[in-house]
Amino acid sequence: MQAWKDYQDQHQQRFLDELFDLLRIPSVSANSAHNKDTAKCAEAVRVSLLEAGCDLVEICPTAGHPIVFGQKIIDPNLPTVLTYGHYDVQPADPLELWTSGPFEPVLKDGKIYARGACDDKGQMFMHVKALEVMTKTNSLPCNLKFIIEGEEEVGSNNLGKFLDDNKDRLKADIVLVSDTSMISMEHPSIETGLRGLAYMEVEVVGPNRDLHSGVYGGAVANPLTILSKMIASLHDQNNRITVEGFYGDVVDLTDDERKALNLAPFNLQEYKDELGVKEDWGEQGYTALERTGVRPTLEVNGMWGGYIGEGAKTVLPSKANAKISMRLVPNQDSHKIADLFTTHFNKIAPDCVTVKVTEHHGGEPVVTPTNSVAYQAAEKAIETTFGKKPIPTRGGGSIPIISLFEKTLGLKTVLMGFGLDNDNIHSPNEKYDVFNFYKGIETIPHFHHHFAAMSKA
Amino acid sequence: MQAWKDYQDQHQQRFLDELFDLLRIPSVSANSAHNKDTAKCAEAVRVSLLEAGCDLVEICPTAGHPIVFGQKIIDPNLPTVLTYGHYDVQPADPLELWTSGPFEPVLKDGKIYARGACDDKGQMFMHVKALEVMTKTNSLPCNLKFIIEGEEEVGSNNLGKFLDDNKDRLKADIVLVSDTSMISMEHPSIETGLRGLAYMEVEVVGPNRDLHSGVYGGAVANPLTILSKMIASLHDQNNRITVEGFYGDVVDLTDDERKALNLAPFNLQEYKDELGVKEDWGEQGYTALERTGVRPTLEVNGMWGGYIGEGAKTVLPSKANAKISMRLVPNQDSHKIADLFTTHFNKIAPDCVTVKVTEHHGGEPVVTPTNSVAYQAAEKAIETTFGKKPIPTRGGGSIPIISLFEKTLGLKTVLMGFGLDNDNIHSPNEKYDVFNFYKGIETIPHFHHHFAAMSKA
Repeated sequence: MQAWKDYQDQHQQRFLDELFDLLRIPSVSANSAHNKDTAKCAEAVRVSLLEAGCDLVEICPTAGHPIVFGQKIIDPNLPTVLTYGHYDVQPADPLELWTSGPFEPVLKDGKIYARGACDDKGQMFMHVKALEVMTKTNSLPCNLKFIIEGEEEVGSNNLGKFLDDNKDRLKADIVLVSDTSMISMEHPSIETGLRGLAYMEVEVVGPNRDLHSGVYGGAVANPLTILSKMIASLHDQNNRITVEGFYGDVVDLTDDERKALNLAPFNLQEYKDELGVKEDWGEQGYTALERTGVRPTLEVNGMWGGYIGEGAKTVLPSKANAKISMRLVPNQDSHKIADLFTTHFNKIAPDCVTVKVTEHHGGEPVVTPTNSVAYQAAEKAIETTFGKKPIPTRGGGSIPIISLFEKTLGLKTVLMGFGLDNDNIHSPNEKYDVFNFYKGIETIPHFHHHFAAMSKA
Repeated sequence: MQAWKDYQDQHQQRFLDELFDLLRIPSVSANSAHNKDTAKCAEAVRVSLLEAGCDLVEICPTAGHPIVFGQKIIDPNLPTVLTYGHYDVQPADPLELWTSGPFEPVLKDGKIYARGACDDKGQMFMHVKALEVMTKTNSLPCNLKFIIEGEEEVGSNNLGKFLDDNKDRLKADIVLVSDTSMISMEHPSIETGLRGLAYMEVEVVGPNRDLHSGVYGGAVANPLTILSKMIASLHDQNNRITVEGFYGDVVDLTDDERKALNLAPFNLQEYKDELGVKEDWGEQGYTALERTGVRPTLEVNGMWGGYIGEGAKTVLPSKANAKISMRLVPNQDSHKIADLFTTHFNKIAPDCVTVKVTEHHGGEPVVTPTNSVAYQAAEKAIETTFGKKPIPTRGGGSIPIISLFEKTLGLKTVLMGFGLDNDNIHSPNEKYDVFNFYKGIETIPHFHHHFAAMSKA
C-alpha cells in the first residue's frame, strides 16, 4: 500500500518528535518516587491514541499504575486485533554509565538513546502511529483495541484483575505485541516462545546489629560470607541449578527441535567479542542459543550488604540481601518454582543465620503456534517490508502477561518485535534504531491487512 | 590524689559538655564530603589541648587529614609520655538504624550515644581532661606529648611520614593509647596484643555492560554469581582461610598461653544471646576468645552489584564488588598477606570474568610486653581506681600505627582502653558509658604518676 508509505514519509519527523516527548517522561514503575511520572505518561498515551484515531480511550485506574485502554471499532463483523504494550520503563541506574541522560533522548548515528527507547515505548508507539497511518489513509481493515499498561517491568500485578473485569470489552481474535527482538534487520525473525519468570528476594540475617569486624570477626558468622556460600551452591560444577525439583517439569526439546533452533544465524566468537568476554558460560551440554532460549536459568540480579561507600570500613554486617530471578521454560510453573526455591533456600541456610525469602513477581513461559492465521499474517507482513521470510526463534526474556491473555481471554499472541539484542534494554544506554522504529510502523498495517484478509477467507 | 578527684567532681558536667561539642562534628575521614568537618574537628582538638595546659599545640597538615601535635614540657629530665588518639570517626551509615542522630549526642541511661562516643573521641578526650586535672592541681609528674590524628579509620596513611619527619620532637619514653576495651567494669583488663589488618577491594567484571537477564542469562557468566563462588571458596569446611600461604607465618600459641587466654571471664551462651544468634561460627578447634583474639580471620565488609533498589529489575550486571579484610596475628605481615590474597584471588578467577584487586590499608599485629615499667604503671593505676588488678587480654581489633611507633620511634605502647565490646563502635548507636569516661579521666593521672615514679626508681 503506497498510501501508507507516503503518509509515513511525510510525517516521519513528527513521529520521532512525538516519541521523544514520550521518552522524556521518567515513568519508572519500580520506584514510587516516580508515581507522578507514570500517571503523566499514561495521560500522554491516552492523548496519542485519541489523536491517532481511536474512538474511545480510557485511563483505567488499578491498585498500582493505571492501564490505558483504547479502541477503534469500524465494523463489529470484522476481526479484532488487541494490541498490548507498556509505557513503564526499567529504573535507569547505574546513572553514571549513561553517556547521555536516560530521560533526555538523543539521536546519534541513527539510534535513539533513552530509557524505554526500545522497551517498550518505542515499540508500543509504532502501533499508535500505524493506527494513525491507517486512519488518515482510510484503510483500516479490522477493529483495533489497545491495552497499554504501566506495570510490565514490575510484574503486571494488576493486569490480571483488569482482564477479568473487562472480558467483554476486550473481546478480540488475536493479541499483537511488539516487545521482543529480531536476530537482525538482515535476518528478520519472530519469537515463538518466551521464558517464564520467578523473581525472589532473600535476606540473610546474622548478628542483631552491625559489628566491628576486629572485635567480633572470627567468632560470628558473617551474613555476606554465608549468603555467598548459599548463592555459590545454587549452580553445580556443570552450571546446573541445584534447587531441588527445579528441572522436574522441564520438557526437553527433541533432537529435531534442537537442530532447528540452532539453525538461526549465530556466531559465538562475535557474541563474545560484542560482550567483551573471553569465555562464555552456562549449563553444560547446551549451546548459547539453547541456554538463552529453551533452558531455565537462575541469575543474581542484585546483591548488597555491609559498607559499600568510598574507602574502608571494618564492619561485620548484620545482614546481607540479594535479588535472585529464575527464567522458566515450558512446562515449569512460576509459583511452584518460587515455592521450591523458598524451601531449598531455607533448607541450605546454616543455623548461624536466619533467612527470609519473599517473592516479587512471576510469569509463565509461553510457546506461540506457528501454524496460525495470525502468525502467518505476521510472516507475510515482514516478508513484504523486509523482502525476506522471518525465522522463528525462541526468546529468553519474559512477558509474563502473555499466558494471562490465553488463560483469561482465550487469546493467542503474536510476538512481532522489532528490537535487537544489543538494544541495551534494562541496561545503561538503551537504544532503538530509527530504522527499526520506522520499519515497525511500516510493517504493522501489513499485518492487519493480511490478518483481516486471511480471517475472512 | 584527692585533689584530682575533687577537681574532676567539680567540673564533671563541663567535661561532658565539651565532649558533646566534639561529638557534634561529623569528622568522617572516609568520606571527602566531610573534609571541612575533619578540619573543624582538628581545630577543636587544638583549642582543647591548649586550654587544658599544653604549652605548644600545632595543627600539622598532611597529604590527607591534619594531625594535631601538642606538648607540655615541665622538665626535660623527667620522663615523657606520648599520648596517641584520633579525632576521626567511622561513617555513620546505615543511618536508618540509629535511634538518635549519630552527630547529635544524647545521654540515655548513663550512656553517651554518638558516632565516636567511644572510638575514639570519648577515649581521646579523657587524656585532654586528665591533663587539665593535673595542670590545674599543679601535679603533673612528667612531660606529656600528644599526637591526635584524623586518619585512623582510613589506615593512618600519612602518620608514618609525620613520625619520620618529626623524630626529634616526638622523643618520649612510652606511647599511651586509649582506643581499646576492657572485659567489663567489674573485670578491668588491659589489651596486650592487637591483630594486624590487610584490607582489600575486589572487582569482578563480566560482560562490558549491564545485560537483560532474560536475553543473555544462561550464556554469560554473572559476576555476582562468580564473586559469590570465589568468596565462598575463601573459607573451607572448617572455616579455615584457603588463601595459599595464609597461615605460613602464624605463630601458634603454646598450650599454656591458650589456657591463660581462656581464663578470661566469658560465657558463650550470653555472648550468643547478646548478639541474637542461635549458633556461633568460626575456625574449628578454637574457642571464641581465641578466634577473635589470636587467630587470623577474613571478613567480607561490604559487597554490592546489580540492582539494589526498591522492587525488581531483571539485570545481569556487568560487575560485582566486595571489600574484604583480613585480621592478622603475630608474625604475619600485612603486605605479604595482601600479596598472597591478590595472587590467590586472581588465580581462582575463572576465564569468563576479569578480576581487579586493590589494597586499601594495612597494619601489623602487635604484642605489648607485660613486664615493662609502663605496663606495670597501667596495672597499678587501674588497681588504684578499680580496686582490682586488670587481666591481660588479646584484642581482636587493629590499631595499625602501634607497630609504626615501635619501628619509627623505637617506642613501646601501653593500650589502656576503657571501652566495652558492646559499645557498638563501627555500628549504629555507638555509645560510651559516662562511668567509663569519668573512670578514664580519674585513672590516667595515676598512670602518669606511677610511670614517673617507677621510671626514676
